[in-house]
Amino acid sequence: MMKVLLLVVGHTDETYLKEGIAVFVDRLKHYADFTMEVVSTPKSASKLPVQQLRDAEANLILGKIKPGDHLVLLDEAGKQHTSVEFAEFIGKMQLASAKRLVFVIGGANGFSEKLYKHASQKFSLSKMTFTHQMIRLLFVEQLYRAFTILKGEKYHRE
Amino acid sequence: MMKVLLLVVGHTDETYLKEGIAVFVDRLKHYADFTMEVVSTPKSASKLPVQQLRDAEANLILGKIKPGDHLVLLDEAGKQHTSVEFAEFIGKMQLASAKRLVFVIGGANGFSEKLYKHASQKFSLSKMTFTHQMIRLLFVEQLYRAFTILKGEKYHRE
Repeated sequence: MMKVLLLVVGHTDETYLKEGIAVFVDRLKHYADFTMEVVSTPKSASKLPVQQLRDAEANLILGKIKPGDHLVLLDEAGKQHTSVEFAEFIGKMQLASAKRLVFVIGGANGFSEKLYKHASQKFSLSKMTFTHQMIRLLFVEQLYRAFTILKGEKYHRE
Repeated sequence: MMKVLLLVVGHTDETYLKEGIAVFVDRLKHYADFTMEVVSTPKSASKLPVQQLRDAEANLILGKIKPGDHLVLLDEAGKQHTSVEFAEFIGKMQLASAKRLVFVIGGANGFSEKLYKHASQKFSLSKMTFTHQMIRLLFVEQLYRAFTILKGEKYHRE
């Protein structure tokens, strides 16, 4: 099974989001070696200027990345895909025997330039802005949907 | 306050979605005369061919529409907006003293041609497909976000 890591910045606060995310993380286990990991800056960092905070977050994220990882940032300025196109991307990565696929959902502060330089791709889920916490739910649902599309299962309807 | 009605087809099943939707419905009360209403086809209809089921749902939806309502369908084939553009649309409707703004999120079966003919506009929240139940959460968050943008409040960050 392909290894997929989802890195998110900061803990999920809302119970309803935690519950929804857990539903799809649980379902994903049947399709991939999936982990969601929270990266948190120390509380003392919250008073730093935004740019320094972003860099601190980037360092924590990059500390989780291994050589050979395929790094995708979820970013409003990224490329939009349909669910089927996203599934095709996942399928390609499986065929290419990618070591590990790493998706990153940033915090409320956005990404630092440092992180953009390390990323292979940038994906956007919508032209609209959602909270970085809600994006987690949207993303795990899309990832689950992608695997069901690849397996030809009934979840997705055109 | 502007009247806004959100019509959805079928009850929300997942508790986490109900909770999330309730958070934003509650917040929306400070900005608009907002109601979310569920339209449900009788269980006996579930065995109908898709086309007939869509028509039955369309009749229930159209039964809720009054003369002068501005009807917007949330539809994958609709126009995508940024959150700011969506807020501008809401602002325009307020200025035009629209009697009532009605958004419709269809069921798993999609919309009938009959309903498309009555709609003023079609909006899409994403190129990706989400469950029609999750779209409810995304939509109420965007509607809340739109009102905070119009009021210049801090919730939305560019």
